[in-house]
Amino acid sequence: MSQQPFSTLAEFKALLEAANGPDAAAIQAAQERNGQLTKPPGALGRLEELAIWVAGWQGNGRPELNAPQVVVFAGNHGVTAQGVSAFPAEVTEQMVLNFQHGGAAINQLSKAAGAQMDVHALELDRPTQDFTQGPAMSEDEVVSALLVGWNAVSEGADLLVTGEMGIGNTTSAAALFLALYGGEAEDWVGRGTGVDDDGLVLKARVIREGLAANPAVSGNGLEALRCLGGREVAAMAGAMARARVLGVPVILDGFISTAAAACLQDSVPGSLDHTVAGHVSAELAHANALDRLGKEPLLSLGMRLGEGSGAGVAINILKAAIACHSGMATFAEAGVSDG
Amino acid sequence: MSQQPFSTLAEFKALLEAANGPDAAAIQAAQERNGQLTKPPGALGRLEELAIWVAGWQGNGRPELNAPQVVVFAGNHGVTAQGVSAFPAEVTEQMVLNFQHGGAAINQLSKAAGAQMDVHALELDRPTQDFTQGPAMSEDEVVSALLVGWNAVSEGADLLVTGEMGIGNTTSAAALFLALYGGEAEDWVGRGTGVDDDGLVLKARVIREGLAANPAVSGNGLEALRCLGGREVAAMAGAMARARVLGVPVILDGFISTAAAACLQDSVPGSLDHTVAGHVSAELAHANALDRLGKEPLLSLGMRLGEGSGAGVAINILKAAIACHSGMATFAEAGVSDG
Repeated sequence: MSQQPFSTLAEFKALLEAANGPDAAAIQAAQERNGQLTKPPGALGRLEELAIWVAGWQGNGRPELNAPQVVVFAGNHGVTAQGVSAFPAEVTEQMVLNFQHGGAAINQLSKAAGAQMDVHALELDRPTQDFTQGPAMSEDEVVSALLVGWNAVSEGADLLVTGEMGIGNTTSAAALFLALYGGEAEDWVGRGTGVDDDGLVLKARVIREGLAANPAVSGNGLEALRCLGGREVAAMAGAMARARVLGVPVILDGFISTAAAACLQDSVPGSLDHTVAGHVSAELAHANALDRLGKEPLLSLGMRLGEGSGAGVAINILKAAIACHSGMATFAEAGVSDG
Repeated sequence: MSQQPFSTLAEFKALLEAANGPDAAAIQAAQERNGQLTKPPGALGRLEELAIWVAGWQGNGRPELNAPQVVVFAGNHGVTAQGVSAFPAEVTEQMVLNFQHGGAAINQLSKAAGAQMDVHALELDRPTQDFTQGPAMSEDEVVSALLVGWNAVSEGADLLVTGEMGIGNTTSAAALFLALYGGEAEDWVGRGTGVDDDGLVLKARVIREGLAANPAVSGNGLEALRCLGGREVAAMAGAMARARVLGVPVILDGFISTAAAACLQDSVPGSLDHTVAGHVSAELAHANALDRLGKEPLLSLGMRLGEGSGAGVAINILKAAIACHSGMATFAEAGVSDG
């Protein structure tokens, strides 16, 4: 482990705390350019804000978006022993093969958005522990998963989407939100891939039991990640953290991706300044989770697939924003009266 | 005119009335395929509905989206004599040059979405009449503008976006909505490219005067288009109608585009079955107008530029939907358990 950037949660947290913010000069240059483009002020709405935000993180007043990367992490969850999912656990591995063969939604969405896509399966034959019986992972296990994510970010990526696959992981994410934000268990559980009303009751009971079995998690994002998360959830957090350190903008995906993000923000406020919410999913508690993070979603299309799919669609919105900002003519260049 | 498909509003209306609906067999085939793809049922939300909808209009159970077309129409409005815009009327022509040189937002957005983009300037040196004094156009004039739009749709286009540029045209659109849907003038006026509070009061007065000067428009969409519309508004309506006849799906853009669409729907119910709302704009009355048409927007990004810009961004959502539907593996192909 000596070659690795961190070998404990404390070292991981220290790297996040030391990360730089966006480049103020690039933001100012991008704002000035935005004010000169051939359109009424503010007429491109959020596209303008997005372009300026990317400019800050890229340190470039005329930002580019040529190398978006989608990374999908897969993990298995011991808590599936409680019967919380509508699908059997072996589907995680089957879907990894589907990702590798190009047959999943995120393959198509990545291709349509011009993004590189990588898949990392994390010890699928070794599910996490059932968190109703104690911590899902040891510190070494969660650190290993964080490192998989940390090392998965391509050097040349200029935008990152982290996606996931893991039967049972909406239950893990709901437990994380309950640990971080409180409220009732029922506030955070949803239908996932399609459980019925009895399944909802079961999921609520299971996450209550998870918190009871892991009393140290409240208000401690990284400890919550270790005790209630999954390997793919930790890997997403690791990738988001690496992107924060590198200054690469990240599009958050759905409920699980947002749970990973929430653990970082809870542990180190400001950790998500380089992220935007790609969409609000149909998993009911996702809107509430985004509210808690102060993130307004770019899309609301009733999606609830995970894999990075909602964020994958949102890549196109960032590309549109950057295309306008960097490609449009100024009033002076075009000889247009500016009102 | 004898070579033209219509030479009166009545003939235009008859063509719309005779248009076929979507292909029921293609819809069924697309629904069946959708149910076999490697994802939980409904997990792609509106992307699934969009793909099936496109399948119906393309008459192909596995639809493609290879040749989207964006057409931008520009026209000048006599009503600018009333001082309703924050920009001078010559900006219409300046922006046409900007479109032709590739410097406008819609150029960049079309390129980013892989769409062909065409611009048609409609007699910019001959503004419509000031509709506070009587009809904006004669029947020959509105028919000529409809024909420009009708003939602008490329034979090979498999998706259409109609955009516009015309200083003063939010006032024209507001007048159309007041004529078609009633209510108070204040309900339909907005800030357009950026008028102040006094400008809003003025716009409301102007559209009230427009209706008073054109008493035959209420409840007659095509007559409203002639009396209160503009050449670019009529051209958009003509292009949408041609797409309806050809079975080409259309993405509606913002306030002006929706006004053109509303004239068709008011005249021939069902005229907009081949359309989806690309976005809801920041022009306040747009949300209300979409409600009246029963259209739920794909995007809400605070845009208010026109040109086809919101719909241009939304092209990517339709492409994402089609990519998933036609490119994903089925459960059987991927060897994934289907729950």
